[in-house]
Amino acid sequence: MRTKSEARRSAILMAAGQVFHDQGFEGASMAQIAMSLGCSKATLYAYFESKEVLFYEVLMTAAGSQMRETFNSIENLSLPIHDALQILGEQIISLLYSEEVMAVRRLLLSAAGRKAGLGKACYEAGPAQFLEATSLLLKHYMDTGKLRQSDSRVAALHLRALLESEWIDLFLFSTMQGFDQAFCKETATRATDAFLAAYSPTQ
Amino acid sequence: MRTKSEARRSAILMAAGQVFHDQGFEGASMAQIAMSLGCSKATLYAYFESKEVLFYEVLMTAAGSQMRETFNSIENLSLPIHDALQILGEQIISLLYSEEVMAVRRLLLSAAGRKAGLGKACYEAGPAQFLEATSLLLKHYMDTGKLRQSDSRVAALHLRALLESEWIDLFLFSTMQGFDQAFCKETATRATDAFLAAYSPTQ
Repeated sequence: MRTKSEARRSAILMAAGQVFHDQGFEGASMAQIAMSLGCSKATLYAYFESKEVLFYEVLMTAAGSQMRETFNSIENLSLPIHDALQILGEQIISLLYSEEVMAVRRLLLSAAGRKAGLGKACYEAGPAQFLEATSLLLKHYMDTGKLRQSDSRVAALHLRALLESEWIDLFLFSTMQGFDQAFCKETATRATDAFLAAYSPTQ
Repeated sequence: MRTKSEARRSAILMAAGQVFHDQGFEGASMAQIAMSLGCSKATLYAYFESKEVLFYEVLMTAAGSQMRETFNSIENLSLPIHDALQILGEQIISLLYSEEVMAVRRLLLSAAGRKAGLGKACYEAGPAQFLEATSLLLKHYMDTGKLRQSDSRVAALHLRALLESEWIDLFLFSTMQGFDQAFCKETATRATDAFLAAYSPTQ
């Protein structure tokens, strides 16, 4: 059962999503979002400490439901591990290297140093949950003998790092020119191959 | 033989290093650096397009000579591959997650979006050269049968990603609290083990 405050939280995320969509991040204000909900700015700030955190959570909520669908389809289809990781990998890259998420990661990085707690709040809203879900999936593969037993949290971090390996500098140095779908597929394949070679059970 | 302009470039880097050391990045100005060299600001800008690029190159020049020493000692000592990659790994993590380099990476990320060419210039000064050196080392291991044959550039990117895997979010979300030497050693070991499992020649 969802509590009243969870329902309110979801309502805020939905309304904020609409305002951000209409106005963009720069154009949108906490006042506008509060107005569209018919609540006070104080109420809004009681749920989200800043516009940055709110924007990040809007993005992560959308990404989260997309990711849950991916995790579900992997479970339901009982895909072979290589196919499952390939699909998951392409989704992760597409998410992290979309214009919106890169913009907010950039913003966070310059803002988080100044605002204590902002970075942590966003980490908990995004990467921490994704890490948890990936660790569980990999643990399942370890327990069913498809991967060798090891620390599933480290394995999940290694997997994400391999997936990002050919992209991260494009982001960090702002040299990316549009999202290349074919490159996404190729790099996900190379990362998946390397991960499986590293984590497959020894013969 | 070094050309006159290379010598001038080195002189600028050395003088700038001193000014940045004395005044910090924020406190230092291009005018001061020019004055300490007895040249005009225009000359300075002819070599380095901005204070950010100059600062980055000062850091990378220092890091570069440290890295060259590492690469040399790996070659000279003919260390076993696992030990060599462990040493290299710890150096890379120590470099990328030092306060100075994180500060400039943060700065770049917020500045590079606005200034065309800044990100590319910094990428060429740092990661591109490191990638080149690591690729060559891995290519050597591939050619001597210590690693399986594959694209050495991709392998170098995979290695760096694995090394950074347990650190990158601490940086991106500004949640790191001081550099932990023991954690550096452990994470380098886990990354090296995963990399060797992925890239060792098949039995």
